[in-house]
Amino acid sequence: MEKYKICFEEEIPKYIQIAKNIKKLIDNGEVCDGEKLPSIRKLSEFLGVNNDTIVNVYKKLQSEGYAFLKMGSGTYAKKRDINKRLLRDYSNTFKRISKEDYDDYVDFAEENPCAEFFPVDNFKKVINEVLDRDGVDALSYEETLGYEGLRSNISKYFWNGEIDSERILIVSGAQQGIDIISKAIVNVNDNIIVEKPTYSGALSIFKWRRANIFEVDMECGGINIDEFEKILKKNNIKCFYTMSYFQNPTGLSYSYEKKKKIIELANKYDFYIIEDDYLSEIRYDERIDYTSFKAIDEGDRVIYIKSFSKIFLPGIRIGYLVMPSKIKEQIENSKINTDISTSSLMQRALDLYIKNGYWKKYINEINIIYEKRYNFMINNFSSVLKDKVQFISPGGGFSFYLKINDLIKKSCIDLFYECKRNKVLITPGVFFYKDAANGLNYFKVGFSKTNEDKIQRGIDVINSILK
Amino acid sequence: MEKYKICFEEEIPKYIQIAKNIKKLIDNGEVCDGEKLPSIRKLSEFLGVNNDTIVNVYKKLQSEGYAFLKMGSGTYAKKRDINKRLLRDYSNTFKRISKEDYDDYVDFAEENPCAEFFPVDNFKKVINEVLDRDGVDALSYEETLGYEGLRSNISKYFWNGEIDSERILIVSGAQQGIDIISKAIVNVNDNIIVEKPTYSGALSIFKWRRANIFEVDMECGGINIDEFEKILKKNNIKCFYTMSYFQNPTGLSYSYEKKKKIIELANKYDFYIIEDDYLSEIRYDERIDYTSFKAIDEGDRVIYIKSFSKIFLPGIRIGYLVMPSKIKEQIENSKINTDISTSSLMQRALDLYIKNGYWKKYINEINIIYEKRYNFMINNFSSVLKDKVQFISPGGGFSFYLKINDLIKKSCIDLFYECKRNKVLITPGVFFYKDAANGLNYFKVGFSKTNEDKIQRGIDVINSILK
Repeated sequence: MEKYKICFEEEIPKYIQIAKNIKKLIDNGEVCDGEKLPSIRKLSEFLGVNNDTIVNVYKKLQSEGYAFLKMGSGTYAKKRDINKRLLRDYSNTFKRISKEDYDDYVDFAEENPCAEFFPVDNFKKVINEVLDRDGVDALSYEETLGYEGLRSNISKYFWNGEIDSERILIVSGAQQGIDIISKAIVNVNDNIIVEKPTYSGALSIFKWRRANIFEVDMECGGINIDEFEKILKKNNIKCFYTMSYFQNPTGLSYSYEKKKKIIELANKYDFYIIEDDYLSEIRYDERIDYTSFKAIDEGDRVIYIKSFSKIFLPGIRIGYLVMPSKIKEQIENSKINTDISTSSLMQRALDLYIKNGYWKKYINEINIIYEKRYNFMINNFSSVLKDKVQFISPGGGFSFYLKINDLIKKSCIDLFYECKRNKVLITPGVFFYKDAANGLNYFKVGFSKTNEDKIQRGIDVINSILK
Repeated sequence: MEKYKICFEEEIPKYIQIAKNIKKLIDNGEVCDGEKLPSIRKLSEFLGVNNDTIVNVYKKLQSEGYAFLKMGSGTYAKKRDINKRLLRDYSNTFKRISKEDYDDYVDFAEENPCAEFFPVDNFKKVINEVLDRDGVDALSYEETLGYEGLRSNISKYFWNGEIDSERILIVSGAQQGIDIISKAIVNVNDNIIVEKPTYSGALSIFKWRRANIFEVDMECGGINIDEFEKILKKNNIKCFYTMSYFQNPTGLSYSYEKKKKIIELANKYDFYIIEDDYLSEIRYDERIDYTSFKAIDEGDRVIYIKSFSKIFLPGIRIGYLVMPSKIKEQIENSKINTDISTSSLMQRALDLYIKNGYWKKYINEINIIYEKRYNFMINNFSSVLKDKVQFISPGGGFSFYLKINDLIKKSCIDLFYECKRNKVLITPGVFFYKDAANGLNYFKVGFSKTNEDKIQRGIDVINSILK
């Protein structure tokens, strides 16, 4: 209790001084992550202040992420993310490199598709066609669900007409999709399950929602079902977030059997599956067959998210959701609360782009281009980095997830900083785990922004650092 | 305690049965809004179940919006919104009217500007100029802050260059602006203050964030400062949400003195001001001078939100924030979590639109058009509706907030349904208050979508219903 003692200064409100002291204790490690803080009564007696003052202290700590409340139990300390500095350095890397300097870098970190293959001319053509055809309608508010033409077209083109267009909601990219869903169905302290490792952008949304996050190991063919079911048995789970194909970051895809099993479990244990289908179009291995969770979703449990930004023009910010009918209204309301509706013109342009057959042609073209790079990456890993990293071949997508061999005493954080000094950008594995420590031996390299010359150079740099 | 009794069925988990019963009690009014629920220990003893079961019950109730937690005190019942049906009917009105039928309606409810004045041709011109000039860059990911050109231009054109463009964040409309800010600074149980009445879209975001909402009466010249300060003295307030000009729904604007005073209070009591500047360009009364809170923001306390959708092409979904430097990083992270960045092409097009001088011209034009309608509305109110409603003249904006005279025994809900049957759409006042009952005598009529003929017809219908 002694550590909570303070000499109050006169000018500053007491609750601010007490909170400041506790924050210092947590940052120092004198109060541990997850340690129970003294009860309101005890601390107020000890410090000779009102109960209300301590209530204010604990509210402040909670609101700043230094504490959380367990119902019927009390307030607990929470250590703030140790990765803040790394994350900032990582994000700033992209901000700080000027356009001119960018060409000197080998960028294994960016996940956007390569701009040089973008169909700018065709897109310009459809935009003008839309403006001529629809005039002012193309620049007015769109209904919340999104442009009817595009929704029907999505149903027809991507779902064989089997999804009612009223169940489709257009969103401004997959990130917004996850945010909207999580606002609609995930509340503070709700339990959710994610893959381990998982997409950091999703993890971050769920953390901001203050959900309780459970992780289940990714393996070949999908998550470990035994682990998964153990969690389901003990906890009331709200939803499971999954990437069915070329999972980010591992690159692994789900087997048909695991998908079936997970849907069965969703019906049994009453939870939703959030399926983030961000990259399934980019498949090099012909043995990989495409069946989404949504396609075999018997109990209407799957909320399907499709992003176009990861393969197509990212600047147009369009994706869509397929909503289970039970929670359709909630999700629509969440979209209204978030930004009312998505840009009308962009929806109409994408619609026409698909209708005119450009979409199919574009996907075929980039598959050929990226498959070459993919094979070039594998050859280089196998020859140059053979003794230094382990990897699996995803059979599709834009990246590889590498494990640094146990004998090499270098973390992905060291590797990130050393690579950066050599103008090579990688993504450290620590971002993909609830507890960063789990990712220390992993890193991700993507090849969507790198040609063969750059790939060669980048891998040579990684090789020399891991020596 | 007796009302909490249940006979358990075997098949269904107990916590679900108990929760169901309590929900029924709350819906029925047998447990009142704000009533304290029995302690975990008491209820578990009374029902002969484990403590954990009741913890699960209360978690479930919380997550479904039927209860909330007060720290150090217990769990309290929360009555769900009685306006759900009305809100649904209201929203569906717009969805259900086909394009062909819409022409038969007098739409006093929609708040978007009238499409017939949209500068489609000029906008098409700038889009093509941008695509020719920037090519693929216009369709790639934009940096999170937004297109640098547009941010500099906003600083120069709207702020005399006095706002650093690094402090400007482009968002996809004002609604997204409020959502992003609230995710960045408002946590569960945080206290915030709004105007009474206020914009229902903001109210709804804050409710979804589970904030404690305080309302302060709007008066001529701004909120009641005495009420405001009373709340500040007793509570740790996170932020105050305000619309400085032509407040929605009242139409009232802030006096310079009140703005000064509120900024002084923000510094004294350490809270942020969220200024939603959605319509200040539309001013008919020359005596109304334009000074935003942000312009006189000495302590860097104001988060300024500008929407372009309310006056310009709503389909392009663009607005911007000015961020205080202390919370700039939080707000940027919140934007990344929300949708990474806003459509690149639209930002560049708007930028060029402003640069080419089209923006200024457009605003001048619509001011002239809408001023006519505004005066026509006032004349009609004064002649036709004289004894039935009270109103004030905002001096700008697109709508009036009317109070039904006390002698007329008709609520705005009745009025809404009766008007609708007569193909006239109004907005009932109940949406603008935390407690709907406060708005029963008010309704809003907007004139952005109605020409003089329609205004005449609509007011005649209202008149005959209020007779």
